[in-house]
Amino acid sequence: MASTATTLKGQPLDRNVLDAMLRRRMFYTPSFEIYGGVSGLYDYGPPGCALQQGVVDAWRKHFILEEDMLEVDCSVLTPHEVLKTSGHVDKFADSMCKDPKNGEIFRADHFIEEILENRLKGDKQARGEAVAAKEEDPKKKKKVKGAAVAIKLDDAVVREYEEVLAKIDNYNTKELGGLIQRFDLKNPATGVQPLPPVDFNLMFQTSIGPSSNLPGYLRPETAQGQFLNFSKLLEFNQQQMPFASASIGRSYRNEISPRSGLLRVREFLMAEIEHFVDPDGGKKHPRFDQVKDIELVLLNKETQLSGKTDVQKVTIGQAVANGTVDNETLGYFLARIHLFLKKIGVDQSKIRFRQHMANEMAHYAADCWDAELLTSFGWVECVGCADRSAYDLSVHAKKTGASLIVRERLPEPIKVTEWEVDLERKKFGPHFKKDGRVVEAALFATTQSKREELAKALDADGALTIDVPGVGDGKVSVPKELIKIEQRTRTENTREFTPNVIEPSFGIGRILYALMEHCYWTRASDGGDEARGVLSFPPTVAPTKVLIVPLSNNDAFRPFCYELSQKLRKVGISNRIDDSSASIGKRYSRNDELGTPLGITIDFQTVQDKTITLRDRDSTSQVRADEDKVIAAIRAIVDGDKTWQDVESELPAFLGQETEVAVR
Amino acid sequence: MASTATTLKGQPLDRNVLDAMLRRRMFYTPSFEIYGGVSGLYDYGPPGCALQQGVVDAWRKHFILEEDMLEVDCSVLTPHEVLKTSGHVDKFADSMCKDPKNGEIFRADHFIEEILENRLKGDKQARGEAVAAKEEDPKKKKKVKGAAVAIKLDDAVVREYEEVLAKIDNYNTKELGGLIQRFDLKNPATGVQPLPPVDFNLMFQTSIGPSSNLPGYLRPETAQGQFLNFSKLLEFNQQQMPFASASIGRSYRNEISPRSGLLRVREFLMAEIEHFVDPDGGKKHPRFDQVKDIELVLLNKETQLSGKTDVQKVTIGQAVANGTVDNETLGYFLARIHLFLKKIGVDQSKIRFRQHMANEMAHYAADCWDAELLTSFGWVECVGCADRSAYDLSVHAKKTGASLIVRERLPEPIKVTEWEVDLERKKFGPHFKKDGRVVEAALFATTQSKREELAKALDADGALTIDVPGVGDGKVSVPKELIKIEQRTRTENTREFTPNVIEPSFGIGRILYALMEHCYWTRASDGGDEARGVLSFPPTVAPTKVLIVPLSNNDAFRPFCYELSQKLRKVGISNRIDDSSASIGKRYSRNDELGTPLGITIDFQTVQDKTITLRDRDSTSQVRADEDKVIAAIRAIVDGDKTWQDVESELPAFLGQETEVAVR
Repeated sequence: MASTATTLKGQPLDRNVLDAMLRRRMFYTPSFEIYGGVSGLYDYGPPGCALQQGVVDAWRKHFILEEDMLEVDCSVLTPHEVLKTSGHVDKFADSMCKDPKNGEIFRADHFIEEILENRLKGDKQARGEAVAAKEEDPKKKKKVKGAAVAIKLDDAVVREYEEVLAKIDNYNTKELGGLIQRFDLKNPATGVQPLPPVDFNLMFQTSIGPSSNLPGYLRPETAQGQFLNFSKLLEFNQQQMPFASASIGRSYRNEISPRSGLLRVREFLMAEIEHFVDPDGGKKHPRFDQVKDIELVLLNKETQLSGKTDVQKVTIGQAVANGTVDNETLGYFLARIHLFLKKIGVDQSKIRFRQHMANEMAHYAADCWDAELLTSFGWVECVGCADRSAYDLSVHAKKTGASLIVRERLPEPIKVTEWEVDLERKKFGPHFKKDGRVVEAALFATTQSKREELAKALDADGALTIDVPGVGDGKVSVPKELIKIEQRTRTENTREFTPNVIEPSFGIGRILYALMEHCYWTRASDGGDEARGVLSFPPTVAPTKVLIVPLSNNDAFRPFCYELSQKLRKVGISNRIDDSSASIGKRYSRNDELGTPLGITIDFQTVQDKTITLRDRDSTSQVRADEDKVIAAIRAIVDGDKTWQDVESELPAFLGQETEVAVR
Repeated sequence: MASTATTLKGQPLDRNVLDAMLRRRMFYTPSFEIYGGVSGLYDYGPPGCALQQGVVDAWRKHFILEEDMLEVDCSVLTPHEVLKTSGHVDKFADSMCKDPKNGEIFRADHFIEEILENRLKGDKQARGEAVAAKEEDPKKKKKVKGAAVAIKLDDAVVREYEEVLAKIDNYNTKELGGLIQRFDLKNPATGVQPLPPVDFNLMFQTSIGPSSNLPGYLRPETAQGQFLNFSKLLEFNQQQMPFASASIGRSYRNEISPRSGLLRVREFLMAEIEHFVDPDGGKKHPRFDQVKDIELVLLNKETQLSGKTDVQKVTIGQAVANGTVDNETLGYFLARIHLFLKKIGVDQSKIRFRQHMANEMAHYAADCWDAELLTSFGWVECVGCADRSAYDLSVHAKKTGASLIVRERLPEPIKVTEWEVDLERKKFGPHFKKDGRVVEAALFATTQSKREELAKALDADGALTIDVPGVGDGKVSVPKELIKIEQRTRTENTREFTPNVIEPSFGIGRILYALMEHCYWTRASDGGDEARGVLSFPPTVAPTKVLIVPLSNNDAFRPFCYELSQKLRKVGISNRIDDSSASIGKRYSRNDELGTPLGITIDFQTVQDKTITLRDRDSTSQVRADEDKVIAAIRAIVDGDKTWQDVESELPAFLGQETEVAVR
């Protein structure tokens, strides 16, 4: 793990320079900026929007199409009752604390992290050690403005702080309050300790309908809509299991104090899969074999709980075999997530999968791994992959009475042997009168072992005794004329079960931001001005595929540009003509910053023989051929069938001076 | 205009049958149905989702790609101040009235329509006239449950009711209240008149941030985000005008009492274009010539105000020339909208463009036309095309001080001759002392003609007199030693203007619903059971392109199905294998209902010679050829390059009995 963020070419990454470029080229911009902006809300401009579209398209192909998933598009507005049942009303919260003096509001865990880190930094200064330029963690908000003061700490205190920081995600609200008190953490701005933290629910609330009669929320995830449609989806899938639904759409979280730019936002695009699987048989996956040799970098929960962050690189096959990853289906999706991130251009050396610790896990999850990407903000959770067990389907079924189960015809009927209770109803009712119903309920609520015991008592004593609170002295005797308890065997043809859910959940905005950092590098410029930024997006996801530049604003070039643009569009390749008066070099630079992978120059030779030059963004090398050959090469590159190296080996190189100067 | 809704083949359309089919095939489903549902909220299931995706893709190609529009993706959460400035907080409302007895809430215009129509129906019954099975209007909610009572009305009253109904969209809240009183309209359920209507704001409210400090709304349209980014978009477009931005995303309207299924919903997908144009020079459009001969069906505002609904069919060139449509840019987009609707499969005989009447128009619009599609609910507004003038950019610029203008270099400098005011500041200040600033402001606020008058007075009297309320007696004399007013000529190289906005705004959900009705028809079945539904979506937008069916569940067919499916997927063609045990006929029927345009059968001959049959959904005719030829034919059909007729003329027909029986 590098101690500072780097570009694609290993150069030190200056986030301010990159950020200025991304804003200048309108990849993104703060929403409502002319009104002063609202923290945690951003708009995507044309290149950001196209990049997002490219990533979403790739996602849809990689997951929905390749795996025949059932895509649904559900409402964002969600009534209170649904999210009450799912647990979000009660548990979807962050710990928030308030400075009683100036009213400032902090996320409690971020507040603690910030102050302890400052103290550790001060300790290092006091000890005369170099303070490494550590990556910032996006979870640390820089809200707490205090600078480190050089004070040496006891070795034991240093160790304690470090351990607290390593498992900061594992504390609940009360424990966080305890840490603030124990370490006497104060807001540097006011010198006072914040009030004890309270839970702040992260859902945006609204009311649906004209008379404010139906309270509702903006969904915090797309998952609930998929669960509520489970029965219809199973029916649509002609009752076949396993299957997965998927959804791409916005979700909302009212973050307490969002900073960190695009990484912590209040409105975001998610792509979520709910894979429904039979919990019996170890959650095997039929295609696991296809991915079992893929190597992943894993950071498990035991390592973190021991206060460390050491990773292991293993194949997913091994990780499932040795129990690090719970089951094949979870493992299959971890591998598929890895392949997806690779496909869209994420740096392979900057991915790790981190397992959640117990308290950190969402309230519904049985096991959970995050795909984290390394950025200048540190390791950032970009994809979560949780085993939600049968939690959601069970709670919704219980609340609504809907049948959210699978009925499976057994390959061959099975015999079930059980103790059964029969009442002699004609005598039972008159005997117990008004207590009849509760006594009956108590009898039928008995377990198999209890029934066996009761049957023996009936045999031996001619009556059984059962606990029925509220009836007489709480012990009720039932004579054998009123009841039979027998062991019987019956044949069953079907089996019913509530599927478990494996949920890979993608934060598209975070992936986009990490991708922009991972694809960014700078190229030394010719003229001695500052280094030029390049975004080396893979052609499949690049916002615009081709830049068309006429050599000059000579009228002769115009029809060629226009015609070529139309031809490319016809075959579905996005392109832009830049016929501005800037030099060719400047125009190519602009498009390097926009991440356009290919450039075509129309020059005087084009007018004579209709050949054009094609330039590769990353190497700046060029080939020259006739239009049809160049278009075919572009298609092959954009479809991912060929690389620039392939094209370079097939078409003649172009070294002509007129563009040579410009692109060096 | 037909008096009853019809299918694609002119059969009477039974909406209940269609609706049951759309739900059974999970095109859509009420959101949260297992919780009882929430009116106005729906989910799209897999085919609805894919159809939506197809229409959105077509839209993106037709508008954004073909016209080089700048796509942006902006926040849905919008702070109060932005929507206060845009006018939505004050004016984005419907009239709502409440029954004082049972608390029922109505949309006032719908309430009036419903009751007046019932009275007219009762009149017809009393007169012994046939009551036509009129299409319902989606605006009429059927909330008012009262049935028609056979009471004859005066002829004059009948005429008055009919006129009111024709211009119902043109009344404001007060006028609607007046109608309820004048006609003594009572809620049939209680027999009492509702309370006077009040305005109900249609925006969903929420608050942003942890301390409820920032009130906000869910956007009612995507437009505001585009306007606020105007300067950045102009910069991105390298200062070139005209240009358009575009956005595809959800918007929200808290409808008072939504019924009419997918047509009136509280959460919906919009696709909006904001085309920024210089208001000078008549809003010409450079590509208007390309569309001028396209014929549109128009219903203008004068016709409606006279209580009629007669349409005219004219070319858009004529309509702009004779002033029916205000300008070329508006006309250009009306034609482009028409072409888009045609492309995705909307029935050409069921489109009209209706102009808004004055009161009906959104608060910002200068002129507005709706593309309306005829459905079983009557004519439904699916696309609005408004000229919003400079309204939005002006109000946001005024509120924020941001510069939302275009600075254009003039082709040649122009000379501007104006009266200018110069003060002799050294004397002016001491002369007026504390009143100096207001007197100065009054002098500079003068118009050109006033200045000319003042200059003459100075010349003639050696002093001028000007009104300055609050200074002395309100008349101030300025002697000529303190001021000069002269006519001067200067040269200007640039011109500044606030662009006007033409806004085509698409309700994707409504278009989808109309499309489903327009593409629907029924086919007589062989076996004597009821007619089978077919959805003849064009291949480009159809949810799934190809169904693959093995003749039986013989194991020999499985590898062929799988391999073919993979090959099609590789070239981007969505497909599904149906290897269920149902008969081939049943399987094809299911996919006719899903709108799958093409079907492939794998049979015993496939195993021998690798040929496959390709079936056309609409004609049920089939061809047989080897896999490569069939895949090429499918690609050509899906890309819109060939029709089934082309393919049928190129590949050998297949009349083999085994599928023949099934598909008749």
